[in-house]
Amino acid sequence: MSPDQLSTTFAALADPTRRAILARLASGETSVTELAEPFEMSMPAISKHLKVLERAGLIARGREAQWRPCRLEAGPLKDVSKWLDYYRRFWEQSFDRLEDYLREVQQKEEKPNGRKKQRDE
Amino acid sequence: MSPDQLSTTFAALADPTRRAILARLASGETSVTELAEPFEMSMPAISKHLKVLERAGLIARGREAQWRPCRLEAGPLKDVSKWLDYYRRFWEQSFDRLEDYLREVQQKEEKPNGRKKQRDE
Repeated sequence: MSPDQLSTTFAALADPTRRAILARLASGETSVTELAEPFEMSMPAISKHLKVLERAGLIARGREAQWRPCRLEAGPLKDVSKWLDYYRRFWEQSFDRLEDYLREVQQKEEKPNGRKKQRDE
Repeated sequence: MSPDQLSTTFAALADPTRRAILARLASGETSVTELAEPFEMSMPAISKHLKVLERAGLIARGREAQWRPCRLEAGPLKDVSKWLDYYRRFWEQSFDRLEDYLREVQQKEEKPNGRKKQRDE
C-alpha cells in the first residue's frame, strides 16, 4: 500500500491488537496459537494482523521449527525512534516551560508578601 | 475511526505528506497557503491532511489571527516516544551483539596466527 517503509510501519502500529501482539512478543518468541489465545478473535483475523506486522518487518516467522515461532523484529521501531528524535526538543521544551512557570510561581510564594496566607491561618 | 489515541496518532503519521507538513511546522507556525506551496497537491487535498493531523492533536490552528496559522503540537509524539521506550532494549541489544561480534573478529585478527595475511603480502 504505502510506498515508503516509515508509512508502512506507522500503519502497522495503528491498531491496538497489533500493538498487543508486539507487546506479547517482547517477552519472547511464541507460536501463533499461543499468540491468539488472549484475543477474542478468529484465527484468520489474527493471521491477517500477523501478515501486516510481517510485511512491515516488525515480526519474523521461524522457518526451522514446524510450529514456525513468531519473534519481534525491532529494526522498524528503531527507525520510528530516529524519526521522532527531530521532534523531541518540542516536548522537552514544553516541559522546560512548565518547569520555568512552576519555579516562577514558587519564587512568588516565597517572597515576604507571599506569606500573607500563612499569617491569616 | 480508531477508538484509541495512539492508533489515531500512528494512522495520522502513516503518510509522507503529513509527516512533511509536521517537519515544515517544526521550523515555526505558518499559514495553510504557505504550507501547501511545496506540495503538488490541490488545496482540498492539503486541507484533508491537515484535518487528519488536527484530529490526532498533532497540529493546532490559531483562532486569533485571520490567517489561522498552523502550529505543531508535540504531545501525541511524546506518547509515541513513551510507547517506544518499552522496545528500546531490543535494538540496543542487537547493537550490543554487533559490537560483541566486531570485537571478537578484531581480537582474532590481532592474534599471532591472524598475521598470516600480512606475511603473504
